[in-house]
Amino acid sequence: MLEKIDLSRKVGKAEYKEARERAEWKLGDLQREARDLAIPVIVVFEGWDAAGKGTLINNLILPLDPRGFSVYSALPPNEEEALRPFLWRFWIRTPARGRFAIFDRSWYRRVLNDRVDSRGKGPPLRQAFEDIRSFERQLADDGFCLLKFLLHISKAEQKRRFEKIRKNPATAWRVTGEDLRRHRQYRAYLAAFEDMLAETDSDAAPWTVVEAHDHRFATLKIFETVTGALERRIAAAQKKPKPRPSRRARPVGADADGPAILEGVDLTKSLERERYRRALKKSQRRIRELEHEIYLRRVPVIILYEGWDAAGKGGNIRRLTQNLDPRGYEVVPVGPPNDTEKSHHYLWRFWTQIPKAGHMTIFDRSWYGRVMVERVEGLCTEAEWRRAFGEINEMEQHLRHFGTVLLKFWLQIDPDEQLRRFREREQTPHKRWKISQEDWRNRRKWDEYEAAVEEMLLRTSTPQAPWTIVESNCKWYARIKVLDAVCEAIEQRLKG
Amino acid sequence: MLEKIDLSRKVGKAEYKEARERAEWKLGDLQREARDLAIPVIVVFEGWDAAGKGTLINNLILPLDPRGFSVYSALPPNEEEALRPFLWRFWIRTPARGRFAIFDRSWYRRVLNDRVDSRGKGPPLRQAFEDIRSFERQLADDGFCLLKFLLHISKAEQKRRFEKIRKNPATAWRVTGEDLRRHRQYRAYLAAFEDMLAETDSDAAPWTVVEAHDHRFATLKIFETVTGALERRIAAAQKKPKPRPSRRARPVGADADGPAILEGVDLTKSLERERYRRALKKSQRRIRELEHEIYLRRVPVIILYEGWDAAGKGGNIRRLTQNLDPRGYEVVPVGPPNDTEKSHHYLWRFWTQIPKAGHMTIFDRSWYGRVMVERVEGLCTEAEWRRAFGEINEMEQHLRHFGTVLLKFWLQIDPDEQLRRFREREQTPHKRWKISQEDWRNRRKWDEYEAAVEEMLLRTSTPQAPWTIVESNCKWYARIKVLDAVCEAIEQRLKG
Repeated sequence: MLEKIDLSRKVGKAEYKEARERAEWKLGDLQREARDLAIPVIVVFEGWDAAGKGTLINNLILPLDPRGFSVYSALPPNEEEALRPFLWRFWIRTPARGRFAIFDRSWYRRVLNDRVDSRGKGPPLRQAFEDIRSFERQLADDGFCLLKFLLHISKAEQKRRFEKIRKNPATAWRVTGEDLRRHRQYRAYLAAFEDMLAETDSDAAPWTVVEAHDHRFATLKIFETVTGALERRIAAAQKKPKPRPSRRARPVGADADGPAILEGVDLTKSLERERYRRALKKSQRRIRELEHEIYLRRVPVIILYEGWDAAGKGGNIRRLTQNLDPRGYEVVPVGPPNDTEKSHHYLWRFWTQIPKAGHMTIFDRSWYGRVMVERVEGLCTEAEWRRAFGEINEMEQHLRHFGTVLLKFWLQIDPDEQLRRFREREQTPHKRWKISQEDWRNRRKWDEYEAAVEEMLLRTSTPQAPWTIVESNCKWYARIKVLDAVCEAIEQRLKG
Repeated sequence: MLEKIDLSRKVGKAEYKEARERAEWKLGDLQREARDLAIPVIVVFEGWDAAGKGTLINNLILPLDPRGFSVYSALPPNEEEALRPFLWRFWIRTPARGRFAIFDRSWYRRVLNDRVDSRGKGPPLRQAFEDIRSFERQLADDGFCLLKFLLHISKAEQKRRFEKIRKNPATAWRVTGEDLRRHRQYRAYLAAFEDMLAETDSDAAPWTVVEAHDHRFATLKIFETVTGALERRIAAAQKKPKPRPSRRARPVGADADGPAILEGVDLTKSLERERYRRALKKSQRRIRELEHEIYLRRVPVIILYEGWDAAGKGGNIRRLTQNLDPRGYEVVPVGPPNDTEKSHHYLWRFWTQIPKAGHMTIFDRSWYGRVMVERVEGLCTEAEWRRAFGEINEMEQHLRHFGTVLLKFWLQIDPDEQLRRFREREQTPHKRWKISQEDWRNRRKWDEYEAAVEEMLLRTSTPQAPWTIVESNCKWYARIKVLDAVCEAIEQRLKG
């Protein structure tokens, strides 16, 4: 298809000047409207070397208010980036609501250069396409306006441009051996581009091929595409105001009649003091050794804790980390999002915390807040928390594609045990700070939360990322169960 | 002095258990008090390899609420970090008010390893000490509680520990050739430690040498030092509430009678259209070439704009960047700080934006807001803006030590010209969004702002970082003056 495109299209100088000026005014206005409507915008530039990305991006940003955009160059991943899932560095750069992010090369490197070079690094190609599709769809579902440009020139034109750059001593250094090697592989890249277009062109994030032989034609086409997409997105936002959240916790659909998972949990499981002490010592020694192993083998580990208030998350995490080297792990406590976090996709703040390969991150509460507290307290819309089940599964799958060991613990206690612990906290001076009116309020909504938890466990226990329910009426039992589950999962991974 | 220290001190097991438990409760309480009083805390761990930093840090953090601290390991700088001034990676990790940051190795690497290795990289040693002292004093002045531990063991003890680690196959990999090389250089490091203590022990950030042969003794000493310092800092905060800001713009002291800088500026300077066009074309071509040069030579460039509302900053920046490659520059517009930024030192948000060597960052308004808008509008205390002159000079000096080209432009217009432009903005549909009630309010305070600007120009025009006053009644003249000044400064630097 790319070969069929007519690359001879041109625009005259006078026509260009007038049209560009008009387009610049328009884009400036649309940027302000998008800002006021809190629409986040992503524009991706991919294409051939020497197709003029730098100049075309600069043309696009000149009429924009610099307070409202950032430009990112996706060079080959640096060390920090190579140690994380390949979408990580793009997720953390997704713009806040009302802002533009412009990418000079993007997540498509993975399915272009990496593919043609067949370095054998990273996940297989189809997995990468899958991860990209869910990434883009998740953003679009959250209200992002996404545009992708493929700057297209012929092999002959590329050759001509390289020669021109190399003739000028001031710019000769810009054409590298890599560039010339890629030039010789023009056909291989063409096939990669075609495949990329076929796999990732979607309503959510459409591709526009830009005939880039004539920079005036290319500039105008980019302006028109961007302004057109913004106008449509803005019109949609003005027509359909964002629905207001409504509180709804009851499980929906057939699942409501399914087996109640939490009901079947045996909360009498316990461990007596002496056995606990011995087991703790042994397991803590084991996990310290594994911490060294995962560092040497560059395995990333994510452990997340969810559970009732006073289920013992804090003490459990403390026993897990007590003997570890603090350089190898991090505990991330998750509370309500701050202003910056609220102005991004709800998964953004978790992406920013993803561990490097070789490190361990422990989340004290997590992204599951979306389908529990945010759902029950009406902090998001029903459509949003319904969509979240699939989004979370996709995110966890992306982590698994990267080789992450992912453990999810639900700490279960019964209402009587919770009451006992609340009272104990109130009566012990050193624990009093742990209990607040908030805890009592949540407790009164036990049933609503339970329904949400049941649905969460059902919909997000995937074969790759199952939940482990931890019987926690006896704290000692719970601590050893978690420690052993973590050790086993890591050992399994190191063997595999 | 270090050699004189009695390293045989020990604590018995029973005594330790009780004392540590007591210290843990206390530290937990103090952390919550520090949080409530918004006191930021930094704890630095330096010392010999195998002195037990990992274990001692873990002991310290276990009683802390994980929502309130972060641990950072200062490995040798990665690529991102090596391309910035050496304090950059620590500045951006300074904790928000109420939080702890614990550093496993720190900015002292520069004056320890780098010094002993004499790699000749980086600024000379005395410059580094100077930069460290101003960094720590700036934080202390802002209310930080700063503690620095030097974990000390003898050469014989270090040898014994290395041998023990190497005997165990599971841990043998942890002792590297580097470690052994440093062990042989024990005396050289001892001298470096002594020098470091002498140069950087201060009330603002005192050093505590910890005898680390006995880990129980070391743990308790660390706990006692931290809790003692926190108690003193908390008591001080409770006794003396933070003074409220008061508006005061009139220049103070002898300078008030000095020459009025702005009065002498010749605002009739201008350029006619045809000459402007030719000069613009020429200068834009020149700066594009220089952009490539600084990239190849890894020179960092910072250009900051300050000036009256409607002085033409936006249009000036646009002409500066019009022809540049967007991969090489970034425009950072500076508005009021957001919540996250407010919870840090006021210079923090600018440190996070410092360009990599080889790149250019253009600040549209800057850290000078502290001594202009924050001063005039009473957004900080008088003590704070008075202190800021010196702090800013120190920051700019640190940037210069790293080889940064730093340009500071004051865009000057007179009140009549401002009025003309305000009216034009109100009457032109496409410019109307640029003008607000805020602008008219600021205009009424012209004299107060002028006094603040005069004092700023006087106190922060250092030989290393002078201000350039740009006569801006004629925008064309102003644009060419800035472009040429930037080109000249870069050329000067490339020659040097």
